[in-house]
Amino acid sequence: MQEKNQNKQSVSKEITPQSKDFSRWYLDTIRKADLMDYAPVRGCIVFKPEGFELWERIQQAMDKRFKETGHRNAYFPMLIPESFFEKEKEHVEGFNPELPWVTEAGGEPLEEKYALRPTSETIIGHMYSQWINSYRDLPVLINQWANVFRWEKRTFPFLRTSEFLWQEGHTAHVDEAEAREETMRMLEIYREVVENELAIPVWVGQKTPSERFAGAVDTYSIEAMMQDGKAVQAGTSHYLGDKFAIGFNIKYLDRDNQHKYVHTTSWGTSTRLIGSMVMVHGDDKGLALPPRIAPTQVVIIPAGPMSKREMVLEKLDEIYAALKEAGVRVRTDLRDETPGWKFNEWEMRGVPVRIEIGPRDVENNQVVAARRDTGEKTTLSIENLAESVNQLLADVQSNMFQRAQDFRTANSYTHINSIQELHDHIESSEQADKIAGWVLSGWCGNDDCESKVKEETGFSSRNIPFAPPVGKETCICCGEKAEHTVWFARSY
Amino acid sequence: MQEKNQNKQSVSKEITPQSKDFSRWYLDTIRKADLMDYAPVRGCIVFKPEGFELWERIQQAMDKRFKETGHRNAYFPMLIPESFFEKEKEHVEGFNPELPWVTEAGGEPLEEKYALRPTSETIIGHMYSQWINSYRDLPVLINQWANVFRWEKRTFPFLRTSEFLWQEGHTAHVDEAEAREETMRMLEIYREVVENELAIPVWVGQKTPSERFAGAVDTYSIEAMMQDGKAVQAGTSHYLGDKFAIGFNIKYLDRDNQHKYVHTTSWGTSTRLIGSMVMVHGDDKGLALPPRIAPTQVVIIPAGPMSKREMVLEKLDEIYAALKEAGVRVRTDLRDETPGWKFNEWEMRGVPVRIEIGPRDVENNQVVAARRDTGEKTTLSIENLAESVNQLLADVQSNMFQRAQDFRTANSYTHINSIQELHDHIESSEQADKIAGWVLSGWCGNDDCESKVKEETGFSSRNIPFAPPVGKETCICCGEKAEHTVWFARSY
Repeated sequence: MQEKNQNKQSVSKEITPQSKDFSRWYLDTIRKADLMDYAPVRGCIVFKPEGFELWERIQQAMDKRFKETGHRNAYFPMLIPESFFEKEKEHVEGFNPELPWVTEAGGEPLEEKYALRPTSETIIGHMYSQWINSYRDLPVLINQWANVFRWEKRTFPFLRTSEFLWQEGHTAHVDEAEAREETMRMLEIYREVVENELAIPVWVGQKTPSERFAGAVDTYSIEAMMQDGKAVQAGTSHYLGDKFAIGFNIKYLDRDNQHKYVHTTSWGTSTRLIGSMVMVHGDDKGLALPPRIAPTQVVIIPAGPMSKREMVLEKLDEIYAALKEAGVRVRTDLRDETPGWKFNEWEMRGVPVRIEIGPRDVENNQVVAARRDTGEKTTLSIENLAESVNQLLADVQSNMFQRAQDFRTANSYTHINSIQELHDHIESSEQADKIAGWVLSGWCGNDDCESKVKEETGFSSRNIPFAPPVGKETCICCGEKAEHTVWFARSY
Repeated sequence: MQEKNQNKQSVSKEITPQSKDFSRWYLDTIRKADLMDYAPVRGCIVFKPEGFELWERIQQAMDKRFKETGHRNAYFPMLIPESFFEKEKEHVEGFNPELPWVTEAGGEPLEEKYALRPTSETIIGHMYSQWINSYRDLPVLINQWANVFRWEKRTFPFLRTSEFLWQEGHTAHVDEAEAREETMRMLEIYREVVENELAIPVWVGQKTPSERFAGAVDTYSIEAMMQDGKAVQAGTSHYLGDKFAIGFNIKYLDRDNQHKYVHTTSWGTSTRLIGSMVMVHGDDKGLALPPRIAPTQVVIIPAGPMSKREMVLEKLDEIYAALKEAGVRVRTDLRDETPGWKFNEWEMRGVPVRIEIGPRDVENNQVVAARRDTGEKTTLSIENLAESVNQLLADVQSNMFQRAQDFRTANSYTHINSIQELHDHIESSEQADKIAGWVLSGWCGNDDCESKVKEETGFSSRNIPFAPPVGKETCICCGEKAEHTVWFARSY
């Protein structure tokens, strides 16, 4: 009972302002908007219906594009035999420390223990070695929607939990060129979904070798800036070369009658996209959801005295039906609460457009539409309401993207050329009570330089953007010639 | 390499006739149609794309109806603390022997071990006790799509595997009446989906106490007859009373200011529906898929000499586009193989309608459509082709259901009134090389009578149908007055 009361208390209190404590703001917001709850399992959360529906919409957006590009879904066992991890050396080193193990089942100890999958390259590699015999069997283009496990020391809802949900694509190709093309195709799909649907601008680029996926030849990512200036790796796509093919003996007989190893890729996005969406768009009122993902796009609220409610409700029903008919995800709020209370409630839940209708609106054949993103109110005629609402939703969508992009630009720094300058930048940001944001700097390509920057400043390399806003000449650490221009930032 | 060759061999061989060995037929068919593969994890299978897509379509059909009846999806942790199982005594006894346990994680032994969920009443009950405080919080109507684990001794692809996929609904209500109404609503949704979408006739009824879900007050099921006469429990819906509410302290403050326990339900269907669909509709040619679930509803195959192929392909493209436009799931097969080879291939894969088009068809502005269910061929005009194809698909769907229902009727026996008569029936069936099917008999309500029937004949009680074809007067075992009329059958 005490736990229950504590819970109620912590959820019903006000949302901490972002400026006061961004982490607290985030945790308050996701609880108050009912996206999740803490679970009685170490580092795990419950994805509540409001949160899970965001994931369902992200899934739909992704899955549609995967299928349009020839991929099909499948499902592989969650349990991975211990011996499988030994077959790719870097892979086991990368994941071993984070694995949970099943050691007993059916009342007996197991002969070989099983890991809960942290990712499925190994078991899928094993199956592909059975399925692929000839060049005619290639490419294999499979995706899996699944739960995965990484027993991390520090967890944070949606961003890093012991169990999370994701999709993992695993493909096999005749050669490097085709596999690299696939790697880039899926990276571009991630960018397109995250920018166009989630309204989150991202930098597309290559990870540095130290930040590569365990066992990959090359890892590429999309990286997003949260409103506290920290980075989230929002999706990754890996070219795995023939490393897993060699480890799992995935060979095919080519047209030239030679046995060859396939080249494989893998790529993934996860429920951390939910957290990213919250941290990119939310404000002190709570969530702000991009219309394309928002489970509810429009909420209609009646206003005016109860004596005139009947006539209002009649018109409200008509509007509701018209919007629903037009494919708008609309709901009404007829609860016995004040309009003001309802306005706050739906703002907190991030609904992109609120429609208010009172007796005078009915007389004038109009409604008032309020945008969640700007707070702006517009009067809309009930004639062609669906059309103007759809236009408004499109405007909100593009404005949210633009605003996030402006925020990113305002908090990106390209003038920093040494660790000392980075120190100064961080210090002066703190003194000005501003976020330190991201820093675009040169890098010589040496791991030591990269790790020195991280150790001394907390800024780690995010990625080497394909299209950096400027090119940098010298390494931020050693001052030698830069081989790459790299985004550095604190990250989740 | 040996394993690889063995695999290839076993897949490419012919399908064993049903009459020779039904199990062998089933295993051959699901391998050859590429629905699954065996996994290197005890009792687990890989759901290959052809098999997984069947599951995706079943999911869509179910999920739509769940949402239409006010349910929302959520996701709860897969790991369940050991102590949770102790809170509902019958539940732990029912599931304990089948649980796999995680005992180590992150390089250390765990203080409390975690089970891989066999079902989620316990962890969901724990969460509901946090979420439910007032009658205003009720009902809670949540569904989860998830992987679950039951470490069973004998496994069989799709029907019984160590890991499988399912949906589990978990609802909480103010009182018994509302919870029982929900239990029946979801049972009816299962019946409707399985009969109307999967074309599988089912008996809807109540399980006997010995066959109840562990911890349920009442369990209801839909039961389907396979073509070997064995039964599959195709879905279950449980009224759990206040048993889990008491175990997990799920209370609410009612309007009358009294604290009361909620009444809960749970209900589930799983990937065993894939196997059921195969075993109800398939034949010696392979799969036969009901049009509403079939990933490919129509395959178009060009015929005639290569010299006239160009003109055929032009028309074929036109037909393909028209069918696709009309929402038919259509594909073409332009591979360099004979039409005969292709016919066999798509029959084996269960595609409901095959369209053949040759030069003469083009001249006559017609095509030939062949039904998978009856083998019947019809000439269809290319004018309004989409309409006539949709009509044909609807006919195939209803004929498949009707045929399955006729089969069921032909193999159901209502004249058996004693164990001796059941013995005789089984023996004479075997001698006539016929399946023994299902037997509708009376039952006095005594557990001992029920288990004696099972021990002596292998026929277990399936359910007590709500609408039995006839009512039975005396118990099949003791001959006393029958309290219930029960379906008995061998089962998967």
